[in-house]
Amino acid sequence: MERNEPSLAEIFSPRGVAVVGVSPAKRTFGRQVVLSLKEAEFPAIYPVNRKYTEMFGLPCYPSLRAIPGEVDHVVVSIPAESALTLLDDCAAKGVKSVHFFTAGFSESGYAERAELERAMLSKARASGFRIIGPNCVGLFVPKSRLVNIMGMPLEPGPIAFISQSGGHAEDLPFYTGPRGLRFSNVVSYGNALDVDESELIQYFSREPETEIIAAYIEGVKDGRRFLGALKEAAAAGKPVVIYKGGMTEAGKRAAHGHTASLTSSVAVFDALCRQLKTIRVDDVEELIDVLVALRFVRPLPRGTGIAVVGTGGGPSVLASDEMEKAGLHMPRLSPEVQAELRQFLPLPGAIFGNPVDATTLTSPEAISATMRVLGNVPDIHMLIYHLGFHPASRWGDGRLSLATFLQPAIDALTQAQQATGKPVLLALRPAPDLGGMKDFLAAQEAFVGAGFPVFHSLRQAAKAMARVVAWNQE
Amino acid sequence: MERNEPSLAEIFSPRGVAVVGVSPAKRTFGRQVVLSLKEAEFPAIYPVNRKYTEMFGLPCYPSLRAIPGEVDHVVVSIPAESALTLLDDCAAKGVKSVHFFTAGFSESGYAERAELERAMLSKARASGFRIIGPNCVGLFVPKSRLVNIMGMPLEPGPIAFISQSGGHAEDLPFYTGPRGLRFSNVVSYGNALDVDESELIQYFSREPETEIIAAYIEGVKDGRRFLGALKEAAAAGKPVVIYKGGMTEAGKRAAHGHTASLTSSVAVFDALCRQLKTIRVDDVEELIDVLVALRFVRPLPRGTGIAVVGTGGGPSVLASDEMEKAGLHMPRLSPEVQAELRQFLPLPGAIFGNPVDATTLTSPEAISATMRVLGNVPDIHMLIYHLGFHPASRWGDGRLSLATFLQPAIDALTQAQQATGKPVLLALRPAPDLGGMKDFLAAQEAFVGAGFPVFHSLRQAAKAMARVVAWNQE
Repeated sequence: MERNEPSLAEIFSPRGVAVVGVSPAKRTFGRQVVLSLKEAEFPAIYPVNRKYTEMFGLPCYPSLRAIPGEVDHVVVSIPAESALTLLDDCAAKGVKSVHFFTAGFSESGYAERAELERAMLSKARASGFRIIGPNCVGLFVPKSRLVNIMGMPLEPGPIAFISQSGGHAEDLPFYTGPRGLRFSNVVSYGNALDVDESELIQYFSREPETEIIAAYIEGVKDGRRFLGALKEAAAAGKPVVIYKGGMTEAGKRAAHGHTASLTSSVAVFDALCRQLKTIRVDDVEELIDVLVALRFVRPLPRGTGIAVVGTGGGPSVLASDEMEKAGLHMPRLSPEVQAELRQFLPLPGAIFGNPVDATTLTSPEAISATMRVLGNVPDIHMLIYHLGFHPASRWGDGRLSLATFLQPAIDALTQAQQATGKPVLLALRPAPDLGGMKDFLAAQEAFVGAGFPVFHSLRQAAKAMARVVAWNQE
Repeated sequence: MERNEPSLAEIFSPRGVAVVGVSPAKRTFGRQVVLSLKEAEFPAIYPVNRKYTEMFGLPCYPSLRAIPGEVDHVVVSIPAESALTLLDDCAAKGVKSVHFFTAGFSESGYAERAELERAMLSKARASGFRIIGPNCVGLFVPKSRLVNIMGMPLEPGPIAFISQSGGHAEDLPFYTGPRGLRFSNVVSYGNALDVDESELIQYFSREPETEIIAAYIEGVKDGRRFLGALKEAAAAGKPVVIYKGGMTEAGKRAAHGHTASLTSSVAVFDALCRQLKTIRVDDVEELIDVLVALRFVRPLPRGTGIAVVGTGGGPSVLASDEMEKAGLHMPRLSPEVQAELRQFLPLPGAIFGNPVDATTLTSPEAISATMRVLGNVPDIHMLIYHLGFHPASRWGDGRLSLATFLQPAIDALTQAQQATGKPVLLALRPAPDLGGMKDFLAAQEAFVGAGFPVFHSLRQAAKAMARVVAWNQE
């Protein structure tokens, strides 16, 4: 008799989690899951290993069936050969979802392993539970305290990230924490035997906590369902940002070896995405930049006009080229606007044409006055201020004193943004040395804390904004 | 009567340097020059300012003429209005070169300032000295202890960098120090009134200390002379790497406001560069990456075949896509080579197709064995090993213990390189936090110290190698 399958909402908020095949050995996945659940104070964690009666200060059980409490979610890192037996236990225990960290299934290229996957799916269907993976790191749901890696930011946020790569799934929340990104859910779904990209995108289109959907996809299982899911996200007004792995011959080969994905051709995938409001990006860095733009640029501009402000002729030329190469537009300033700027910016070594470059543009007063003038130009839709691309704004050697600069600069930019209604972006360049990085990270933390989008290069800022404006114009 | 003009070699090794218009005020250029010359122990520094008799512990002179010793080079940061009077003093003193930091000349857009520049040039021609700039930071020549900014690496190296931007000129040696780049000369030449890009490239084509020529150019003054200079560099076997600023309309406008450069069209410039062995890059980051490749990849490959090695499926797919998108080729591995790898790499979670991904690929033994197998594949011309793109090789949280990993890994890669004759490149991803950056910088220092080229992203490595291989194939 088939039971009703649980909803993804139920799966993302389990009451009890069993970790099967956990051992105390370092650098093992089971250990990492149990310790991170403990760190997150998840209430009901059940290590399962018949060799132990206690592990990490928790009672350890010889089998799933021996666990006294409710188990909704099972994390599995036993060898693939034992998968079917384990699923019988899962059925008997009445679990809702089973996440296989275990790899070595269809992606190994062996026919019998693909066969094994199909048998696993039949068991799941017959017994009414769902499978996440195999060959993935599973679920990270901050609001449920359901975590799979230590040191993740546990504060929930508006981004859902689905990833066929466990590495990217673990990487994104960790790397983007200092840039202010927080997640509602991160789902690593590996070989996508059961729960797949289309179901997840559809689910997050409806889930109220999620405002932005990010995806790392190697292969789409069902083009028609995928299209339907993207349509639902578009109808809900939620941007879907997709980084598609396996765009080249070598990439496809790697993706097939990684998650057994048969990646579609670039042309087909591109055509699919273009039909809908989808933002395609080319790699992890660009995914991060677009998420930062969607999350923090307020209001999201509907036009491509940008003004560039900062110190240094070289960086100003570079910035201008990057903006226009990416498809943004740098409106010329009228003689009247230039005259306004000349009232408070020094002439020698300055550029007044948009970009605006002056030696005093590390002073909060000059920044404030410049931003207000530029923000009131009608065809300028956004403003970017850059720091760290010129020795005059170099981190760490005291040329720019953060103690006197940071808070006044944040106030100046916040007020300029409010006064003109135009969003201000920051391009802060990381430093090459530890002293400089200390200052850089402090500045980033302060700007992010004040709600600003922070990018690490002018090119990255330009590319991300060009994509986001195009999406917003549709 | 005209005197013989000094050679650039004489200008780059002055006996005495006067700094005119220096003041003790912080964040002024003259102060920076005097202090950095002191730091570098330049033997004969003469501050000139009639308000002081002593500055920074040195005798200070009321005028150039009052200096008792030989003055070959003069650094000027007085207002543009006093330039002609000063040049009369320079003529009287018999100097060889005058560097104007002073800005506000032709780049300001005022006709009378362009006129002033022409008068300055006439005086220089008549009196037999040369002008560097105006509107630039001048000369950094490590072997002559002639420096213009503090904290620069003073060890000479094989790269000459000429730059129309003072910011880029100061920035490049500082930023690239940790990646191992060292310079024979850095010449910031601003408005190029007298000494210009063609003369400098021709000079460095002949100078024995220089093996690689890098250039940031906003405008070319004389296309025919420029072509001749590039031909000479090509004939000398020295690569010329050019980052051309002002490629877009906004960039051209900025370049004109920056150095009064009338930038040629992209098409014309591209055509010019394509005729010769010139490497064109799109921004400062790419310039740095190509210089790292030219300096440290040994031997420089003549083919595009690359093998990717490291931990993590996601990063491996990403790496593959980046390599092929950039124009490199990832040869498939034969069943025999794959079988060899399977002898020592674990099956689950691995990819054996090139990329090679295995969980054990943070162990020096596995790295060594893998690199030797791949390095012996004939159509693989280079190998890249990546770290930090996957949580298993994350910096700073103890997953990868640098104490036990670093030296054995360097030994393994060095031996693999020697045994197979194929160059090994490193892609090390910077960390998002200070603890991680500490480990990252330590790892970078160790790899750079052992002579490896280190890149910060897979995309940057791929793009740089594609450009360098194309240059090397011509």
